[in-house]
Amino acid sequence: MKKTIITISRQYASGGRQIGEKLAKSLGISVYDKELISLAAKQSGFSEKVFENVDKQSANSLLYSLSTGMYNAIGHFDGANNLPLNDKVFLVQYNVIRDLAQKESCVIVGRCADYVLRDNPDVIHVFIHSDMKSRIRRAVEEYGMVPDHAESMILKGDKRRAAYYDFYTGMKWGRVENYDLTIDSDSIGLDNAAKLIEDYTRMRQE
Amino acid sequence: MKKTIITISRQYASGGRQIGEKLAKSLGISVYDKELISLAAKQSGFSEKVFENVDKQSANSLLYSLSTGMYNAIGHFDGANNLPLNDKVFLVQYNVIRDLAQKESCVIVGRCADYVLRDNPDVIHVFIHSDMKSRIRRAVEEYGMVPDHAESMILKGDKRRAAYYDFYTGMKWGRVENYDLTIDSDSIGLDNAAKLIEDYTRMRQE
Repeated sequence: MKKTIITISRQYASGGRQIGEKLAKSLGISVYDKELISLAAKQSGFSEKVFENVDKQSANSLLYSLSTGMYNAIGHFDGANNLPLNDKVFLVQYNVIRDLAQKESCVIVGRCADYVLRDNPDVIHVFIHSDMKSRIRRAVEEYGMVPDHAESMILKGDKRRAAYYDFYTGMKWGRVENYDLTIDSDSIGLDNAAKLIEDYTRMRQE
Repeated sequence: MKKTIITISRQYASGGRQIGEKLAKSLGISVYDKELISLAAKQSGFSEKVFENVDKQSANSLLYSLSTGMYNAIGHFDGANNLPLNDKVFLVQYNVIRDLAQKESCVIVGRCADYVLRDNPDVIHVFIHSDMKSRIRRAVEEYGMVPDHAESMILKGDKRRAAYYDFYTGMKWGRVENYDLTIDSDSIGLDNAAKLIEDYTRMRQE
């Protein structure tokens, strides 16, 4: 039987991570998000802190390295010793994601996983979004944001994700063409959104 | 019981119209596409030919009329006697769509219906897209396009839809935020895409 691999990209505070967790639980497979960071950290010898920080910074010069073909025959990047730290972190995550997809069925949240696995036609790519009102509510209730600052923090969060994605992939974050399925999570709730992705997955594997 | 109203926007030759037909059949409700044109034509006294031609032309100056508030208290545009023909046609379709949504459950394909019904929180908005290879196959097999010209015709078709939508709505066609659900139709096939929208609709109405 084929593996089930689902990538979930998501707007900041849209509930994408929670949907990924519910979906993985229901399918009986693993979900990778912060767990992925730990895994990558273990393999690379970097501290987890380095990986966490990369998400908060702007990206720089990886496309150059991608275009010069610095990865070997089994799809692993190498020769990356002279790259800036952010790019090394991206490369380690890139390899971890490809290894995971080789080994097991899983849900991968964020980390440009849709781009990393774009050449595997069996992988399912989902994007989760939501209206600003629901995202502010979630940010305040669940992430403990100060209500007055929530909207600007959310917009900054989106901007950071888009910049990171656009830089490392050369594509545009959140463009409908990149995904098999996009869902407004709050229009049906997180449980239903997870169920709908499961329905889609079943149809895809028929 | 609440009415079920679903708008389907779609890339050219992505199978959106067929999905709308399958969905409407399965839900036991009507679908409006060319039928909508006929209905609008009947009400306006214009010939159907006029409505068909509008889709093929570029749009012009309606946003001005929208911003000057040329519609009356029950949501009907009026005072439109001095508008260019394209804008009049848009207005007639606008009113027909709003009347339909008042009267009955239905699926409406195209015609900026998502924009026209944006203030009704119960309406479900779907966007259908597909990769170019599948669209070329569909255009050749079902619309009888010459294979060598299919891709450029499809791109032109998309461009026309985007220009019409962007002009008349002031929004961006095909942007993920405008839709509750977007589906890559060929990743699961047209029957399954219709079923998935039905699943979503059930969840939405729970």
